Amino acid sequence: MFIDRLAIENMEHLYRVAFVNSLSGFKSANLLGTVDHSGQTNLSVVSSCVHIGAHPPLLSMIIRPHSVGRHSLENILEVGEYTLNHIHQDIYRQAHQTSARYPKEVSEFEATGLTECWQDGWKAPYVREANIRLGLKFREHHHLAINGTELIIGEIMQVLVPDDCVREDGMVDIEKAGTLALSGLDRYHRSEHLARLSYAKPDRPLREI
Amino acid sequence: MFIDRLAIENMEHLYRVAFVNSLSGFKSANLLGTVDHSGQTNLSVVSSCVHIGAHPPLLSMIIRPHSVGRHSLENILEVGEYTLNHIHQDIYRQAHQTSARYPKEVSEFEATGLTECWQDGWKAPYVREANIRLGLKFREHHHLAINGTELIIGEIMQVLVPDDCVREDGMVDIEKAGTLALSGLDRYHRSEHLARLSYAKPDRPLREI
Repeated sequence: MFIDRLAIENMEHLYRVAFVNSLSGFKSANLLGTVDHSGQTNLSVVSSCVHIGAHPPLLSMIIRPHSVGRHSLENILEVGEYTLNHIHQDIYRQAHQTSARYPKEVSEFEATGLTECWQDGWKAPYVREANIRLGLKFREHHHLAINGTELIIGEIMQVLVPDDCVREDGMVDIEKAGTLALSGLDRYHRSEHLARLSYAKPDRPLREI
Repeated sequence: MFIDRLAIENMEHLYRVAFVNSLSGFKSANLLGTVDHSGQTNLSVVSSCVHIGAHPPLLSMIIRPHSVGRHSLENILEVGEYTLNHIHQDIYRQAHQTSARYPKEVSEFEATGLTECWQDGWKAPYVREANIRLGLKFREHHHLAINGTELIIGEIMQVLVPDDCVREDGMVDIEKAGTLALSGLDRYHRSEHLARLSYAKPDRPLREI
């Protein structure tokens, strides 16, 4: 099926949202934990986290400031610290429920039954039920003029990860940790290991590692 | 296991690269197809594609201009059009091999045996073997000062997708199309459907859809 720009333009609004959201491929599935100066916490699903660099260790995410991301963005800019918590099979329903439009004075932790977890010296709340948890400091902010979204870059300052999920060469086995992938707006997937491939060189065949 | 910023700093270089690359969660797995004005094609794995918005339909990706992404970035800025092609199980080894450092005059299509496919009126090459293929026009460019990487935003102008992979509500079934997910630097995963969940509302329980 060939679909051009005009056909996308002519799609019904919700159809287009579902269609275009599927096209990037699989998405990361994280819970973004934030808090404001008064101590009011917020938790929301973020599917746009990507790796920016390892040294310094940086992740970015896209936030829609006029939508459900508003409170998270305000909190990040106010407090300067936030957490990312990998969504796994036992918490994905609660995680998905955080995307409902609760008023600011309702914490999505309480509303969904996920548990706040505070680490000494860290201002933002972690999700106790998550297996892989990251604490990030806000570093850089880009306004994406083309559609009014915001790119937020944070530096990884803390990592909590199960001992048996860190491999000898540093890779974290996120499949073993139960981390899920997202597709489209609302579909959750488990993963099934296919292969790890060696570092590619022009003159050498790949091997499984 | 608790790992702080200093422990990350003290990691051996390749260990840190593998570790930090695992932390964002699952990544999308695409082949980026480009061409320069002389007709020289380039193909490279990109694991940082994310959805930016549906109206207009926008995707972003991160490119390292001083690394293997150099030729792709030059071509995108020169020609203004590029393609993204979902990596699936039958082509992931060839896809991975494109990340070797070939000289600019070697096309990764030829080097890996993947097939260029040209669509009328479109300047950049598609990958014939891919099931889901997108043609994008370059729209916006942000230099990420914090580590010298580049954020490239493109508008989806063309979509080629198998007829039986588009659901009634617009969602594209990328699992059915065989699209893979990546984790870390080099690990490929199949997906296994867990559930689609309804749009979350504060006062209503979720249901599977």
